Amino acid sequence: MPRVVVDVMPKPEILDPQGKAVLGALPRLGFSGVTEVRQGKRFELQVEGEVTEAVLADVHRMAEMLLSNPVIENFEVRVEETA
Amino acid sequence: MPRVVVDVMPKPEILDPQGKAVLGALPRLGFSGVTEVRQGKRFELQVEGEVTEAVLADVHRMAEMLLSNPVIENFEVRVEETA
Repeated sequence: MPRVVVDVMPKPEILDPQGKAVLGALPRLGFSGVTEVRQGKRFELQVEGEVTEAVLADVHRMAEMLLSNPVIENFEVRVEETA
Repeated sequence: MPRVVVDVMPKPEILDPQGKAVLGALPRLGFSGVTEVRQGKRFELQVEGEVTEAVLADVHRMAEMLLSNPVIENFEVRVEETA
């Protein structure tokens, strides 16, 4: 069954304190080599029936209205086949 | 430049109150046809140099130790080419 995935990430110019906190913790845990971490959200949606263009357009509007804050976040909608 | 993405999602058997809140809000916003919503986290990591097997193994350990709670969450590591 396909599912629709919405990835929501802070815009590049927006400060991301959660990502910074993760980045700061990595050396303390013994990890090196990571230069940047950004933290965002991932939504997995199950829809009734087929994932048509109309369904994807709906999910775009959901992402704009509810799942993201367009002032500070970008989002991406895509379809993923599940195992 | 490639980046490493870590998707962290609540395990299927774990209650997901954030996802349920989104699902409950959709009809009030005029959307129908979505039967389930799960909300998780997405991390984007920039690493120095090439993304080798060793780097991916490191990211796996970061995901286990820091980015996810293995008791209630599953995670997936993958490489994404950026534009």
